Amino acid sequence: MQALVYLGPGRKALEERAKPVISAPGDAIVRITRTTICGTDLHILKGDVASCQPGRILGHEGVGIVDAVGPAVASFKAGDHVLISCISACGRCTYCRRLMYSHCTTGGWILGNRIDGTQAQFVRIPHADTSLYPIPDGADEEALVMLSDILPTGFECGVLNGKVQPGNTVAIVGAGPIGLAALMTAQFYSPAEIIMIDLDDNRLEVARRFGATSTVNSGDGKAVEAVMKLTNSVGVDTAIEAVGIPATFGICERIVAPGGTIANIGVHGTKVDLHLENLWDRNISITTRLVDTTSMPMLLKTVASRKIDPKLLITHRFKLDRILAAYETFEHAADTSALKVIIEA
Amino acid sequence: MQALVYLGPGRKALEERAKPVISAPGDAIVRITRTTICGTDLHILKGDVASCQPGRILGHEGVGIVDAVGPAVASFKAGDHVLISCISACGRCTYCRRLMYSHCTTGGWILGNRIDGTQAQFVRIPHADTSLYPIPDGADEEALVMLSDILPTGFECGVLNGKVQPGNTVAIVGAGPIGLAALMTAQFYSPAEIIMIDLDDNRLEVARRFGATSTVNSGDGKAVEAVMKLTNSVGVDTAIEAVGIPATFGICERIVAPGGTIANIGVHGTKVDLHLENLWDRNISITTRLVDTTSMPMLLKTVASRKIDPKLLITHRFKLDRILAAYETFEHAADTSALKVIIEA
Amino acid sequence: MQALVYLGPGRKALEERAKPVISAPGDAIVRITRTTICGTDLHILKGDVASCQPGRILGHEGVGIVDAVGPAVASFKAGDHVLISCISACGRCTYCRRLMYSHCTTGGWILGNRIDGTQAQFVRIPHADTSLYPIPDGADEEALVMLSDILPTGFECGVLNGKVQPGNTVAIVGAGPIGLAALMTAQFYSPAEIIMIDLDDNRLEVARRFGATSTVNSGDGKAVEAVMKLTNSVGVDTAIEAVGIPATFGICERIVAPGGTIANIGVHGTKVDLHLENLWDRNISITTRLVDTTSMPMLLKTVASRKIDPKLLITHRFKLDRILAAYETFEHAADTSALKVIIEA
Amino acid sequence: MQALVYLGPGRKALEERAKPVISAPGDAIVRITRTTICGTDLHILKGDVASCQPGRILGHEGVGIVDAVGPAVASFKAGDHVLISCISACGRCTYCRRLMYSHCTTGGWILGNRIDGTQAQFVRIPHADTSLYPIPDGADEEALVMLSDILPTGFECGVLNGKVQPGNTVAIVGAGPIGLAALMTAQFYSPAEIIMIDLDDNRLEVARRFGATSTVNSGDGKAVEAVMKLTNSVGVDTAIEAVGIPATFGICERIVAPGGTIANIGVHGTKVDLHLENLWDRNISITTRLVDTTSMPMLLKTVASRKIDPKLLITHRFKLDRILAAYETFEHAADTSALKVIIEA
Repeated sequence: MQALVYLGPGRKALEERAKPVISAPGDAIVRITRTTICGTDLHILKGDVASCQPGRILGHEGVGIVDAVGPAVASFKAGDHVLISCISACGRCTYCRRLMYSHCTTGGWILGNRIDGTQAQFVRIPHADTSLYPIPDGADEEALVMLSDILPTGFECGVLNGKVQPGNTVAIVGAGPIGLAALMTAQFYSPAEIIMIDLDDNRLEVARRFGATSTVNSGDGKAVEAVMKLTNSVGVDTAIEAVGIPATFGICERIVAPGGTIANIGVHGTKVDLHLENLWDRNISITTRLVDTTSMPMLLKTVASRKIDPKLLITHRFKLDRILAAYETFEHAADTSALKVIIEA
Repeated sequence: MQALVYLGPGRKALEERAKPVISAPGDAIVRITRTTICGTDLHILKGDVASCQPGRILGHEGVGIVDAVGPAVASFKAGDHVLISCISACGRCTYCRRLMYSHCTTGGWILGNRIDGTQAQFVRIPHADTSLYPIPDGADEEALVMLSDILPTGFECGVLNGKVQPGNTVAIVGAGPIGLAALMTAQFYSPAEIIMIDLDDNRLEVARRFGATSTVNSGDGKAVEAVMKLTNSVGVDTAIEAVGIPATFGICERIVAPGGTIANIGVHGTKVDLHLENLWDRNISITTRLVDTTSMPMLLKTVASRKIDPKLLITHRFKLDRILAAYETFEHAADTSALKVIIEA
Repeated sequence: MQALVYLGPGRKALEERAKPVISAPGDAIVRITRTTICGTDLHILKGDVASCQPGRILGHEGVGIVDAVGPAVASFKAGDHVLISCISACGRCTYCRRLMYSHCTTGGWILGNRIDGTQAQFVRIPHADTSLYPIPDGADEEALVMLSDILPTGFECGVLNGKVQPGNTVAIVGAGPIGLAALMTAQFYSPAEIIMIDLDDNRLEVARRFGATSTVNSGDGKAVEAVMKLTNSVGVDTAIEAVGIPATFGICERIVAPGGTIANIGVHGTKVDLHLENLWDRNISITTRLVDTTSMPMLLKTVASRKIDPKLLITHRFKLDRILAAYETFEHAADTSALKVIIEA
Repeated sequence: MQALVYLGPGRKALEERAKPVISAPGDAIVRITRTTICGTDLHILKGDVASCQPGRILGHEGVGIVDAVGPAVASFKAGDHVLISCISACGRCTYCRRLMYSHCTTGGWILGNRIDGTQAQFVRIPHADTSLYPIPDGADEEALVMLSDILPTGFECGVLNGKVQPGNTVAIVGAGPIGLAALMTAQFYSPAEIIMIDLDDNRLEVARRFGATSTVNSGDGKAVEAVMKLTNSVGVDTAIEAVGIPATFGICERIVAPGGTIANIGVHGTKVDLHLENLWDRNISITTRLVDTTSMPMLLKTVASRKIDPKLLITHRFKLDRILAAYETFEHAADTSALKVIIEA
């Protein structure tokens, strides 16, 4: 089968690989019909993710058709149409029992990282019963690819952790795909104001279309002042960090109102300054989270009932044999205006 | 009347001052019967608290007898026996309506800071209806002085924010009075393990008497290793920071388990390093809080029903005219083994 | 001044009464600009509310202009444009401190019940600081009249108590004004399905316009079967009772799914059967609540940000001197299709 | 093997039965070392539980040694010392994913009900990975038998659902084993007062030893008056129903304070009167629940750390071949003062 393989920092190739086989009783083999590329895949390609070794098939998102299941799989059978969670969960370890699937002792984020992933014609899914989700008849496959990772990440790490509530004021720092997913799902809770902050006017324009009530281009270094002005010097109830660098986390620290929350989504590569000399008496919370995808059943329902349309995040489409072009488009988002690219396998 | 007055960095004196008078309809004048000294008073004396200007009568804790009330005070009358909250709350601003009394727009921590405080024979209490609490007949005054600040601070900022739960593992970094108050009130929720960390063996010995299940002297720089060993390399569900310096916050960052919480109580004078490169995917929370004293009614009930005995925190007693000696004793706690000192007015 | 006075069961009149005066330091006198009629006023007129004695000016909803304030009122002054809460709250009793304003020991629902109300040219508002809300410039008075009672009642008693969540299935039994207010505010949380149940096709048609995803006319006695069919025999996560009779509560008991909640809003005059022999092992909750109006600041924000349009509930408008006609219209809602009627004073 | 078999209403026998065998990949066979009898077993013997048919081996509590496991069992192997949950949970259905194990679509309470149970030398446990719990070395087997059902039932249905909090006032109606389990675990949260209500002075005496702060013998029909007197006419924050008849539920309705919760544990055979005409505006909650045993890991930790001693519930001990005598003793608790009886297999 065809597969996009990581070959070491800066190197990848579309290679011919053997179709995966069932190797544990709880495994399923899924024939991928659609997958996509994540910002994390680019991190791997830069050599930033030590757990992902050369030779690995990338990709942790996708939908497909079950090709085969191991003897312990009870909820799926060959032919079932399924959504793949980016997080594999055994459903029985201490962490899974607390619904912290991201920390599953034999799962978590392993697809396209510690084991071969979804940017291929087939993928092996461990713990299939608790890592796959049935796709209802008539659902739109492309929309559901957005539920493998980006929607639950924006929702769980940004919106749920950020305790977004009706009438509140939310700021989202970073209008890339993950920030836009947070923007989309924040509206489940009807905040009064959502301020989107980014350096790219095109992405801010998209944010306005997606429901942002204000946008701030932080290119002038005055994002904090702009947010304080928009909030009558009070600050925001929820500040969602969707970039992952010290400067953007710093903005969140300065705009969070007393009693507010900074919900970190960004993947950070270095420490940040936490100004406890300013924050110790502000009654704030800071949260971090790797997505657990425990919100998947809820997200499936909201998509089915048209409360959100995740397909809006899709800007480009490619066949699997052109995945290198898809990567090219996704990597140069500033020029291509790419958000999420669909790969049809 | 006699009053302990801050005269600028490093300087204080017991002076004769005019008895305070009602200056707003919601004020009460309280004759102090017992007060105490807080670590924050020492901060002021070092010149670290800019909002507290020379000439200020210090002190934000105490119990006493109502001497007079303004015309709008509905819940108290002269002669009532009352507990003074360190936080003044108007009860009607946006923050008070959210039970964030610490951020009351005309109150918060003002006693012994922005207005004259309780280390005197009399004190003026603004917003008396919502800043004083009736003392039930037969209650022990000394025990209740501990409720003005230190018990609610340990409980709200450490235990409640830290989400201490039955069966959980808690670490408290700092076994001073505030850490011990957290230790005492953490036991309301029956955690399975409470690990106390400090540099002072005497305080650790007190902690064991107060209910710590393990103690770690961090003098060897190996507190993190010790906690990880005690927790089978999992870490703690709740790490309470009760010191206020980068090193102790750093310990909390390294011992918090996935899914856990770092609850900051310490008053920090400088920024700390937040290692988001390690914590971004650990599903943790970090909280800060200035005490709101919203737990006062509950704490009064638990003292009345003997669930806790705050009097255990009291090590020394002085008359008001010897308050300078009381300060001397409290400042040299390492030598005097002082925890809280009672000043009888 | 003109005032609508309750004269005993079945009797009311528009009378000339003395303008109210400040009688406690926390009082405000408000000149009413707009008020409305509540189903509870009809209950009083039937003689069902023992606490409301003949001679009482009715009405507990309204907006107006502050005419005078007592010396203890800090947040309002003459000339301020204000929204009146149907619940008076002292802000300092045990219940107010727990945000249970409905149970305020010197307040609660007293307007137009234990003290004279708002269906008059002027009204005295006790505890004005914590019972009035400032109306922002440019806000629509008529929309805000809906916030005095009906919107917070639908929201707090129905939606908040009912724990409505994104993706959930909600049923609301009763499509009168209060049920429609629950319908409107339930959408703050983006449930996937909202099923509205009533006997009146006109009201169900209104419900569809307001966002109900399905409607069930319960006239055939088969509402339960209809709801179970709509929910694949699972039942609903939240059943909101917005009528107040045994039959409608009975529907809620039979349609609530395991793990679900029955949130009662209805004012009941008699006991109901609780079928614990069916429900004891279903992991459900049943809640009751008299509105606290603690959600008022949030509701004001959502109206300002156009998340909801409460004005949609208004079907008729009258001048105060025609308030008897307004009552006539409101009482015969089945014929007049009246929802809420505005009385302009 | 020996097994206690239900033979139809009023009839049971100790019979010789075939040892169970693995019948699904997730099954385990456990050799029972200790089991016990539950009030529910008596219900079955009265013919009250339609799902339990004659021929069924009774019992849903116990500890033992794993004898064999199916090929899909990952967490246990032959020889492991295990605690059996009374609730079987697949870990992957919609309900299990919401931690509502009691409603597992292929599990729930099936042991000794829909499938053969634990009052035998061996038992087959379906979904073993998520229905058994490892017993740590050195743990006391007898204490842990109390964790199969009675402790989590008292805790989850009574204490957790009842939202017991520090400083609160709790009443428990019914001082049988389940009420005592609620009493024991309520103390995890340090309520200020726990009032125990029963008809049996012996059980009330036990309750006092277990931590009740007051006891009320309801034999005079004046329990409500007694509780109101003990609570200064306020009522209780939490009323736990641990009997299951209309009269005891009625007591709970009358003693619950505004803002309080009635947590039902009792297994009801008939409807009760719910006096919504009194309760509609009292801001109360009523909860029902079949135990999920999701608190098992926490309970194991609190037993290990000696926060509770469940062994105190054990009054009698029998060998399996004398289980009929054990039933005799348990059924006549009023005479024998039996609480829980241990059966050693």
